[in-house]
Amino acid sequence: MKESLGFIGLGIMGGAMAANLLKAGFDLTVWNRTPSRITPLAQAGAAVGDSPADVAARSSIVITCVSDTSDVQEVILGPQGVAKGARPGALVIDCSTISPQATRAIAARLNEGGVHLLDAPVSGGSEGAAKGTLSIMVGGDAAQMERARPVLQAMGKTITHVGPQGAGQMVKLVNQVLVVVTMQAVAEALLLAQAGGLDLEQTLAAVSGGAAGSWMLSNRGPQVIHRDWRPGFTIDLQQKDLRLVLETADQLGIPVPATALVFQFYRTLQQQGLGGDGNHALTKALEHLAGMEIGRAL
Amino acid sequence: MKESLGFIGLGIMGGAMAANLLKAGFDLTVWNRTPSRITPLAQAGAAVGDSPADVAARSSIVITCVSDTSDVQEVILGPQGVAKGARPGALVIDCSTISPQATRAIAARLNEGGVHLLDAPVSGGSEGAAKGTLSIMVGGDAAQMERARPVLQAMGKTITHVGPQGAGQMVKLVNQVLVVVTMQAVAEALLLAQAGGLDLEQTLAAVSGGAAGSWMLSNRGPQVIHRDWRPGFTIDLQQKDLRLVLETADQLGIPVPATALVFQFYRTLQQQGLGGDGNHALTKALEHLAGMEIGRAL
Amino acid sequence: MKESLGFIGLGIMGGAMAANLLKAGFDLTVWNRTPSRITPLAQAGAAVGDSPADVAARSSIVITCVSDTSDVQEVILGPQGVAKGARPGALVIDCSTISPQATRAIAARLNEGGVHLLDAPVSGGSEGAAKGTLSIMVGGDAAQMERARPVLQAMGKTITHVGPQGAGQMVKLVNQVLVVVTMQAVAEALLLAQAGGLDLEQTLAAVSGGAAGSWMLSNRGPQVIHRDWRPGFTIDLQQKDLRLVLETADQLGIPVPATALVFQFYRTLQQQGLGGDGNHALTKALEHLAGMEIGRAL
Amino acid sequence: MKESLGFIGLGIMGGAMAANLLKAGFDLTVWNRTPSRITPLAQAGAAVGDSPADVAARSSIVITCVSDTSDVQEVILGPQGVAKGARPGALVIDCSTISPQATRAIAARLNEGGVHLLDAPVSGGSEGAAKGTLSIMVGGDAAQMERARPVLQAMGKTITHVGPQGAGQMVKLVNQVLVVVTMQAVAEALLLAQAGGLDLEQTLAAVSGGAAGSWMLSNRGPQVIHRDWRPGFTIDLQQKDLRLVLETADQLGIPVPATALVFQFYRTLQQQGLGGDGNHALTKALEHLAGMEIGRAL
Repeated sequence: MKESLGFIGLGIMGGAMAANLLKAGFDLTVWNRTPSRITPLAQAGAAVGDSPADVAARSSIVITCVSDTSDVQEVILGPQGVAKGARPGALVIDCSTISPQATRAIAARLNEGGVHLLDAPVSGGSEGAAKGTLSIMVGGDAAQMERARPVLQAMGKTITHVGPQGAGQMVKLVNQVLVVVTMQAVAEALLLAQAGGLDLEQTLAAVSGGAAGSWMLSNRGPQVIHRDWRPGFTIDLQQKDLRLVLETADQLGIPVPATALVFQFYRTLQQQGLGGDGNHALTKALEHLAGMEIGRAL
Repeated sequence: MKESLGFIGLGIMGGAMAANLLKAGFDLTVWNRTPSRITPLAQAGAAVGDSPADVAARSSIVITCVSDTSDVQEVILGPQGVAKGARPGALVIDCSTISPQATRAIAARLNEGGVHLLDAPVSGGSEGAAKGTLSIMVGGDAAQMERARPVLQAMGKTITHVGPQGAGQMVKLVNQVLVVVTMQAVAEALLLAQAGGLDLEQTLAAVSGGAAGSWMLSNRGPQVIHRDWRPGFTIDLQQKDLRLVLETADQLGIPVPATALVFQFYRTLQQQGLGGDGNHALTKALEHLAGMEIGRAL
Repeated sequence: MKESLGFIGLGIMGGAMAANLLKAGFDLTVWNRTPSRITPLAQAGAAVGDSPADVAARSSIVITCVSDTSDVQEVILGPQGVAKGARPGALVIDCSTISPQATRAIAARLNEGGVHLLDAPVSGGSEGAAKGTLSIMVGGDAAQMERARPVLQAMGKTITHVGPQGAGQMVKLVNQVLVVVTMQAVAEALLLAQAGGLDLEQTLAAVSGGAAGSWMLSNRGPQVIHRDWRPGFTIDLQQKDLRLVLETADQLGIPVPATALVFQFYRTLQQQGLGGDGNHALTKALEHLAGMEIGRAL
Repeated sequence: MKESLGFIGLGIMGGAMAANLLKAGFDLTVWNRTPSRITPLAQAGAAVGDSPADVAARSSIVITCVSDTSDVQEVILGPQGVAKGARPGALVIDCSTISPQATRAIAARLNEGGVHLLDAPVSGGSEGAAKGTLSIMVGGDAAQMERARPVLQAMGKTITHVGPQGAGQMVKLVNQVLVVVTMQAVAEALLLAQAGGLDLEQTLAAVSGGAAGSWMLSNRGPQVIHRDWRPGFTIDLQQKDLRLVLETADQLGIPVPATALVFQFYRTLQQQGLGGDGNHALTKALEHLAGMEIGRAL
């Protein structure tokens, strides 16, 4: 069967992902709440739907990529939502990052109309979305996952089926715990290096290859020491995801003390207007405490 | 000039490092506080000194590899110490992990007798020592570093000159901050994965390759989910190094809040007799809090 | 004007508070979601309403005392809510502990119908509710506060007007930060005393009177050392309030790192079935970490 | 027996305490490392010793009040120390705050010469020292405690015998845990109050009397909201004591996570030159993080 695709949510991530689907040759109908974001995709050959329901009526697979849980509920279950237009047998792939619990509830509602759901949150930032190199963590039925694979491969490089519905979102939250606490490690380490009078480039070179190494150290460490706060992934988005992490850990009753501490630090940066900086600007919270700056002469 | 080597401190690390020097063909005189550890090296061809001073009198380069700051002070500056026997122009390479500040003081004392010091703490654990694949972070004079290079290359794979005397130790402390806080990230992430009902193997596979990835996640994550607590690096040694980190951060006046939190967790494990477990057993502190175990059915 | 009172929410707190209003001679109409809790008050002379709206129709002042924000929204703004029955000029006194922000929104809705709102959360636990010795923190119009004073004085001892609508709730959250972090101080201090081999009674006597002193130390310290975990205020209720604190701090963008840490500890106790213990059982989280118990021979 | 007193260490605390002994009519011989601090006491009638040993030779009871463990070791066990001059049966009362472990070692050394030791650290700050209202926590033999009582009562108001040698110091450390974590509670609470738009005076009035109440809230809360950072007890001294707390908790193997966090915050303030501020200036660490100030218009 030739799948016809729909795409809902053309933000920085979704716009780039939809563009990659067009490049891969898929038939695509798009919709976005803010119409101005639709134009570039229409120019590239996408059809334009009147509503999420209309997109769903024209598609066998609908991808959603919006901001948070309430947005997903609106575009899927709302009065003009996907569920209103989707035919039995259709597949919804939600690439947003939202609550695992809410995902399971939405899946149950779609299932009443014979519509499948895969949760497929992505990692890799705007650069990964543009290049089609995202990591995609997929929760849901294995057969639907195979059905979705060609679509997902047009948007990402590492596609991993991680379990039943909600599991994709849960893995994404696990991913975010790792990202932010590892970044806290990098921030404390670089502050110690700076205060200890080390050459920061040499320090990175010496420690990155061994047990201390991490993606954050290798990729964000150099940005920190050059005070380059341009985002791969913004503090604003990081905090949105961390809120989900803390809510989920609370629901599950488990302790995540370092994550909770990092949330506090990010929140103060956001409040001071730095929410558009990259998540490696976590370093600045320590700098504010310390009254000193990394990468500046002491 | 053909260098004649001395080696002081034949513990798990030092014994293996000295053995690699013999294998590389160096003339070697050894000494250890506990004589029983000397025998295997004597059998392998090492000469045996009567004291650190005696070893120094017979060597142009002396390597020290002992437990902590006071041990280094004793074997170098004590009544029978290296400084008593070393000739002007000799080089001491201290592979122990000790205080950067104390290192600079010892270097100043040695310098009075025309003896050079390189601080050269190592990373890579007992396995790296045995295989000769240690990472070695070297502080001190660049020319002495070049003089030491063939010796260091017989013991390690990655030799990095990171700055003046004390800088090697400081980089080692930076390394330890990264190791333990990244491990805290892994522990919180895996606890969330367990409580969230995820398949832990699949979860590791899904997140290790991207922004969440780290050496600890790839190497210690699988050990945690199989409840294999055998050490690469023990909690006891980790805590010794973390005490140095916290003292040094205190002297420098910088905040390392997550490191301080992790220290608290490790200390409780040690007190409960788990100091011989690997540093990834940090996970157990969270498990004790949570009243649940990773890698066990819920 | 003789006020006729309504009371909605007859739980452990509300039931005792309503009983005190009857004792003080007020005309009282009551309602509760679970009818069985109504009987004792009916027997004591209260009239019984059919719904919150019905109670409001019969009363000039309606007190609400329910569990959380959504409950208050339901009993005030729901289809059978107070707003449906209340006449212009009526006063609603909300004694629940809920979000300051939600309080202001509810106040605005009530105001459309000419109905006043005071937020009046209470402190002092079930014992204070029974004895009529609660502390009541009141937000809202000063004239309405004076109108409410005789009612509040029948339920509490310390009545403080703290500002406009929402301020009562905000002060309550400030109160809860103080309570839990001070309790953390007590827990860490007593664990140190125990491990240090001190006589715990003497220790309390020695430190309670000075700069280290607090209500928690004087009142909950003795309970901890006798391992008496009976609640003044349960962990379950404490966590409900702490969630509000953390949400509010998040909205306001301020750091509350120790509060966030304590939340993590309480949550693990709750998950292990100890939510009915008093909030001083926070101590047990440290005990679980430490593998030792306060008040037991070492 | 009429006791003749010696006093060693005439700093801000010791000078005031010695003056109170003179006022109470005791014969007193004094010594201080910095001679200029001796003059006011000599003018008030004190004899002046040449060294701690000399003071001890002239006295039946010697009080020591110096900065830290190494200072106590020097003035008691050093070449010119108290132990060199004290006669069998003499009593040393150490009012310094030092390590409980070191106290027991010093006591054992004194005991070899038939000299008794009481550890008697004080609480109450410079104001309490001046007014003679200190709290004094005494460890050691009960009979010696009774012998010392008249002396202690001339310097303090609340004299508590808390156990054997070292117990006084241990109780002092317990006291300091309570002081600093309770102050953290006050700081987080007032920051929430400020950000929440509350009237800070009213807030203090509303919460100080109940379960949230503490000495720190009642005494330092008002200073915080008026931005009065004059010390009762300076951050520098607080940090010295907190270092002892953390070392002792480390030796005992117990977790004190909130205390460890507060240490980090204080250290950054000290590094920024605020070590002379009162310990309630802990608040400023949160302010630096938050980028806002308590007691200032938003």
